[in-house]
Amino acid sequence: MVRLISVVGAAECSEEEAQTAEEVGRLLAERGFGVVCGGLGGVMRATCKGCKRAGGQTVGILPGDDPNDANPWVEIPIPTGMGEARNVLVAKAGEAMVAVGGEYGTLSEIAFALKLSKTVVAIGKWSNLEGVTPADSATNAVDLAIKALNAN
Amino acid sequence: MVRLISVVGAAECSEEEAQTAEEVGRLLAERGFGVVCGGLGGVMRATCKGCKRAGGQTVGILPGDDPNDANPWVEIPIPTGMGEARNVLVAKAGEAMVAVGGEYGTLSEIAFALKLSKTVVAIGKWSNLEGVTPADSATNAVDLAIKALNAN
Amino acid sequence: MVRLISVVGAAECSEEEAQTAEEVGRLLAERGFGVVCGGLGGVMRATCKGCKRAGGQTVGILPGDDPNDANPWVEIPIPTGMGEARNVLVAKAGEAMVAVGGEYGTLSEIAFALKLSKTVVAIGKWSNLEGVTPADSATNAVDLAIKALNAN
Amino acid sequence: MVRLISVVGAAECSEEEAQTAEEVGRLLAERGFGVVCGGLGGVMRATCKGCKRAGGQTVGILPGDDPNDANPWVEIPIPTGMGEARNVLVAKAGEAMVAVGGEYGTLSEIAFALKLSKTVVAIGKWSNLEGVTPADSATNAVDLAIKALNAN
Repeated sequence: MVRLISVVGAAECSEEEAQTAEEVGRLLAERGFGVVCGGLGGVMRATCKGCKRAGGQTVGILPGDDPNDANPWVEIPIPTGMGEARNVLVAKAGEAMVAVGGEYGTLSEIAFALKLSKTVVAIGKWSNLEGVTPADSATNAVDLAIKALNAN
Repeated sequence: MVRLISVVGAAECSEEEAQTAEEVGRLLAERGFGVVCGGLGGVMRATCKGCKRAGGQTVGILPGDDPNDANPWVEIPIPTGMGEARNVLVAKAGEAMVAVGGEYGTLSEIAFALKLSKTVVAIGKWSNLEGVTPADSATNAVDLAIKALNAN
Repeated sequence: MVRLISVVGAAECSEEEAQTAEEVGRLLAERGFGVVCGGLGGVMRATCKGCKRAGGQTVGILPGDDPNDANPWVEIPIPTGMGEARNVLVAKAGEAMVAVGGEYGTLSEIAFALKLSKTVVAIGKWSNLEGVTPADSATNAVDLAIKALNAN
Repeated sequence: MVRLISVVGAAECSEEEAQTAEEVGRLLAERGFGVVCGGLGGVMRATCKGCKRAGGQTVGILPGDDPNDANPWVEIPIPTGMGEARNVLVAKAGEAMVAVGGEYGTLSEIAFALKLSKTVVAIGKWSNLEGVTPADSATNAVDLAIKALNAN
């Protein structure tokens, strides 16, 4: 069974966030994990790119019905037709969560992961939210997420 | 068509929170609104009690499959069998949201409402979250929620 | 608590089906039941019209996010944004199901109701499906559905 | 991107159905497809076994929250916590559907696939349903499903 980490963040992100997300994806792949995300652009695309290029599995749980909405780095598209309600599925499919920036959609994913007692590591925007573990770089975030899994 | 406000909060709450939630339900009913919530205990039960006693409609969107899981003040139970994924439905069914305390499940509902550009008024726990309108009493919360609807 | 029966059928239906559906709604209201349906046109609109005019409650579980997509006879709109996935919610919300015509969307609702061991009474199209109770008129369908509830 | 076919059927099945399902999985893998299913036992387990052993990808969309509920041949578990409502996701995730036996849960998946205008090939139980293409063996079913994809 593939081990997956949820990576969440906005569909439109800054260049810096995209670089961070790509590095998160690459580091997860190098440590034996795949990525599950919302399957679209921005942080989702960047993290899938980093992960797939480094040989990791990439799963995109899409809001719409068309698998072709997935970014080109998604290996396994899961079209849901459920709109934002698919966010809960993104939170459930990973053993832990890494958030890179993001807005309220990302916040809903973080809230579900915390509700499910999963470790959530965040860079930027939501890093100060109660229950979230803050990180200041991709390396730091991946280290913290995997360390938490190993401690459980 | 009945006009509904989402009222969210924890299934286990303090006596003070229950009193606040009940008053929120009563005030909403007096101003012509019904309540939609997660249908269970704590804040959900108290707000349904206040609303129904004052003649308002009460809708409970339940995590399980059994309508009898609803608290006794729910007039319309909607069993979903979707677990926490039903939180997004609670957020979607109201024109605005009032949060009374609550934990991460409540946070997911707030996040979805904000994502949908709805007004969220919170008492206690999540009142300092970005995008949320803080309130210090039931009266204040209901005033702010309805004022926001009228301004749109 | 309002007692609800699911009424399902196509969003575009014949005049005869609309008359049957409206009568189903009216008869259910006269016997103390409300109607839950998919909230849109055709059979859904006709059954809500019949039910509400006779004083019954009408709940519409909508595929989209906008409560204003509901037909004008829906008293309680539940927007889901879940598309066809909302069909399972329509099946879960009623104590029994009456189907009037319909195509594959209706079939999915019937299948879920049967899976949940609920009585499904069908007029027309799906009346010969295994597990379904066939009816030849609105009166017959409502009688059979309520008789089954009373027998349980 | 992995190409997936939905394979559906009962969680408890006959030995003959299991053999058929395993062969369906194997043949799909040999022709370059992965399998998406409900992730549990019976037909789901058998088809995953056949597919994975032949080098194909296997995705299990689970009704519960625990990825460990998946059968041991599932490579990518997608826990949903949505119960039977996850059936619509199984139907959406495949380009076409093969049904081996099954009861009402399977019928709901077939209905959703037909609603989405996908080809549904069925062996046994639901093979005479309107809109379904009947098949009499695993080879025949896989041939018909892939031929339909190539014709579109």
